[in-house]
Amino acid sequence: MSATFEILDKDAGGRIGKLKTPHGTVETPTVMPVINPNIQLISPKEMRSFGAEILITNSYIIYRKEELRSVALQKGLHGLLGFDGPIMTDSGSFQLSVYGSVEVTNEEILGFQQKIGSDIIVPLDIPTPPDVHYRRAEDELAVTAERLEAARKFIKGEQLLAGPVQGSTYPELREKAASHLKGLNFEVYPLGAVVPLMESYRYAELVDVIAASKRGLSPASPVHLFGAGHPMMFALAVALGCDLFDSAAYALYAKDDRYITVNGTYHVEKLNYLPCSCPICSKYTAEELKKADNKEELLGRHNLYATFAEIRLIKQCIKDGKLLELVEQRCRAHPRLLDGLKKLYTHSPWLEQLDPATKGTYFYCGPESASRPEVLRFAKRLERFSLEGSVLIRTGQIKGEGSYDQILTFKAPFGAFPREMEEVYPFSAEVSKYPDYEALSTALSNTLKLMDLNPKAEYTFICEKEFKHPLIEEISKKAKLVYREAWKKE
Amino acid sequence: MSATFEILDKDAGGRIGKLKTPHGTVETPTVMPVINPNIQLISPKEMRSFGAEILITNSYIIYRKEELRSVALQKGLHGLLGFDGPIMTDSGSFQLSVYGSVEVTNEEILGFQQKIGSDIIVPLDIPTPPDVHYRRAEDELAVTAERLEAARKFIKGEQLLAGPVQGSTYPELREKAASHLKGLNFEVYPLGAVVPLMESYRYAELVDVIAASKRGLSPASPVHLFGAGHPMMFALAVALGCDLFDSAAYALYAKDDRYITVNGTYHVEKLNYLPCSCPICSKYTAEELKKADNKEELLGRHNLYATFAEIRLIKQCIKDGKLLELVEQRCRAHPRLLDGLKKLYTHSPWLEQLDPATKGTYFYCGPESASRPEVLRFAKRLERFSLEGSVLIRTGQIKGEGSYDQILTFKAPFGAFPREMEEVYPFSAEVSKYPDYEALSTALSNTLKLMDLNPKAEYTFICEKEFKHPLIEEISKKAKLVYREAWKKE
Repeated sequence: MSATFEILDKDAGGRIGKLKTPHGTVETPTVMPVINPNIQLISPKEMRSFGAEILITNSYIIYRKEELRSVALQKGLHGLLGFDGPIMTDSGSFQLSVYGSVEVTNEEILGFQQKIGSDIIVPLDIPTPPDVHYRRAEDELAVTAERLEAARKFIKGEQLLAGPVQGSTYPELREKAASHLKGLNFEVYPLGAVVPLMESYRYAELVDVIAASKRGLSPASPVHLFGAGHPMMFALAVALGCDLFDSAAYALYAKDDRYITVNGTYHVEKLNYLPCSCPICSKYTAEELKKADNKEELLGRHNLYATFAEIRLIKQCIKDGKLLELVEQRCRAHPRLLDGLKKLYTHSPWLEQLDPATKGTYFYCGPESASRPEVLRFAKRLERFSLEGSVLIRTGQIKGEGSYDQILTFKAPFGAFPREMEEVYPFSAEVSKYPDYEALSTALSNTLKLMDLNPKAEYTFICEKEFKHPLIEEISKKAKLVYREAWKKE
Repeated sequence: MSATFEILDKDAGGRIGKLKTPHGTVETPTVMPVINPNIQLISPKEMRSFGAEILITNSYIIYRKEELRSVALQKGLHGLLGFDGPIMTDSGSFQLSVYGSVEVTNEEILGFQQKIGSDIIVPLDIPTPPDVHYRRAEDELAVTAERLEAARKFIKGEQLLAGPVQGSTYPELREKAASHLKGLNFEVYPLGAVVPLMESYRYAELVDVIAASKRGLSPASPVHLFGAGHPMMFALAVALGCDLFDSAAYALYAKDDRYITVNGTYHVEKLNYLPCSCPICSKYTAEELKKADNKEELLGRHNLYATFAEIRLIKQCIKDGKLLELVEQRCRAHPRLLDGLKKLYTHSPWLEQLDPATKGTYFYCGPESASRPEVLRFAKRLERFSLEGSVLIRTGQIKGEGSYDQILTFKAPFGAFPREMEEVYPFSAEVSKYPDYEALSTALSNTLKLMDLNPKAEYTFICEKEFKHPLIEEISKKAKLVYREAWKKE
């Protein structure tokens, strides 16, 4: 799709990519620390020491303030900020969403970003908030589309151009907008106006918005979840295919005495301990931090360390094919995130197309794991197994099984598969000894489906006493059902 | 119970405590880094910078090696190690379990520990491994009991004496042993010979061993899970009431190129990124770490940082009444830990007695959350609610509810409770919008029980379409069942 973005590794909808910009290549997923051109808690050039590879700042603020504007025009954006790596610039759309109007046109701000040497230029789109009337979302989308088309004609050089996807909380509008923009070949696709969803913990809706936008876009394009900066939801967003985040949170939260962790945010006054291993939290006690003269700066540093550690963990999980395990763990931090996880797997048929055919050992993490792409893929391929004669289905090797024509292993949440495949992905899965109801539901219905596909075989199903599920009765109609305990006595 | 241990805060079976020793007071839960008297990857005096408050070393190794022994006898244990804080000493029991015999008697090694000024002295007990014949476990327990009685008579001063609980994988033996030792008033109770269970990920059995031992002991006594040093299981063990851990892992793993995280262990060669925020992982890249001349030391430092960050997080969670939320998250790191979590909640009736009556907001994390102590407690108190007349049960406010005599709120996994209590703990719970089967099972059976306790009232149950559960049919036999969608249309 885009020569500027190369995908190196994949897991679920997530990927490790390389994004080429005029000021260097960035490895994604990553977070862009937001640099306020007026006040800097931590200097841009120091950002690399936390793991930042690219920054983001606001061209509208620079444009509007004479001291900043003249320096930017003279020395360039990189000279102004004192950072020689890639810098993305926002356009004033945020100010538009807050104040209702801005004193600049789309063309003016595009030209300004181009002139000061931004690496990723953002047009002046309309960030339609959640829950507006459908008509308003549609109308604003039309204005955004016009401006983006104008921008695409205008920006044609080495600099990257972002094409923000809007559409409020209407997945169909998001998908339509994304499909339209796909044809215009932007280098980066921000998903816009999602901050209100995150602020009110509406993660299930956020998942739908991201999934809809991604469906409209080419899977080869880099996607920026605009305004997402809290590490608690990075894994979930990456699993859906987001590649770039931006964090003003590290500084805004610090100003507000808030301490970021992957499990949520603490007010520093409520901390008795510093539950983190970063250089700040390993050096100071909670009491020392609370009393420090440079408390805000220390909190900002901690927030950045916590943010980038999560990015590295996510990337390692993609390499290991364990991203969904991380997502399922992180989404236990808040029940609204758990709702987001449950929503994520309603998109499993789509994720399954993106997910690698083989990867790290599947670890069962909870009922949601029964809806993971690899479980779905197994269900879709049941017709590949052909069964004849006497078929024994059991959870593990049992005495006297040699007399059966075929032997299947039953493992929730998958179902029954030839025992020869026990060590093969995904059947090598590590699962709980005590399967949840949902895991049994999937495994037993897959088993019933397999039996229906092979009606001539004669089945014996060795059942564990822990398996309590109404589908066991269905199984007993199609197979000789023996409890393992009883089998031993035979 | 013991004047040396004071409990400051509690959550589930976990607690924050203060353990007084001759060389100072230690806040628990904590980990004691194991100091090898022969080789030190990281010096004892540096251990404080990672968060260590107490160390553990092996008195038998010191006793057997002339150079060490003479220095220890002359300068004391603290002089030998160059650490002026509390130090616990092991007795040679570990060597006994590995080599089958040791060249020292119980009295000799007790006397030696006393002489060199150990803060916590351990007798030469018999560490019976898992899975031995019951008879052997019993016989060895008798020898251990004799030696501990002798030790208790022998050690009477300021120094603390540990009374290890043995009993192999027989919970009844563990409980019996613990009850016996309780009467002898040891200052610390190590749970012995659990390392093989942890090495083979037998967390469900470990949970039973800990719970059985704890039942036998006084809840006021500090408990040391001997040999437990991997942070992935600290939260689970703390929730069961373990106060002390010891980590040789930080150094042994480092020697073996292994990198510890709360989600498990990585071989450093397989790391593409350093998924941690500690001073080592924030300074080095994975490639730099792999090639570093002092790789072993750097890994040891990372391992210690990761270990103590988890301890601080656990303590903060106890303060916030959120320990079980952390446990439920951590136990998703491996399906065997998930089995341990499921086993933990089979002990909920016991945990419920220890758990504070009110604490931080309950967060639903998954099906296991339906078996948490507070949910159980609610079920036990259903008879406190007396219902009469027309009773409406709904998940949230609906039109026209004013005409009912009493209004109850239904929230899984709890059940139905007076709507006036919506903001009161535990009903202020944050739960998933899409309840799991297990959460509905508990909530619906509690609701049925409440109806049975108040048979004269007339019930209307407003059901959500997402609620798919066989007990809905039972509800419909005792209540007018209306789906929320249908209600709106009425």
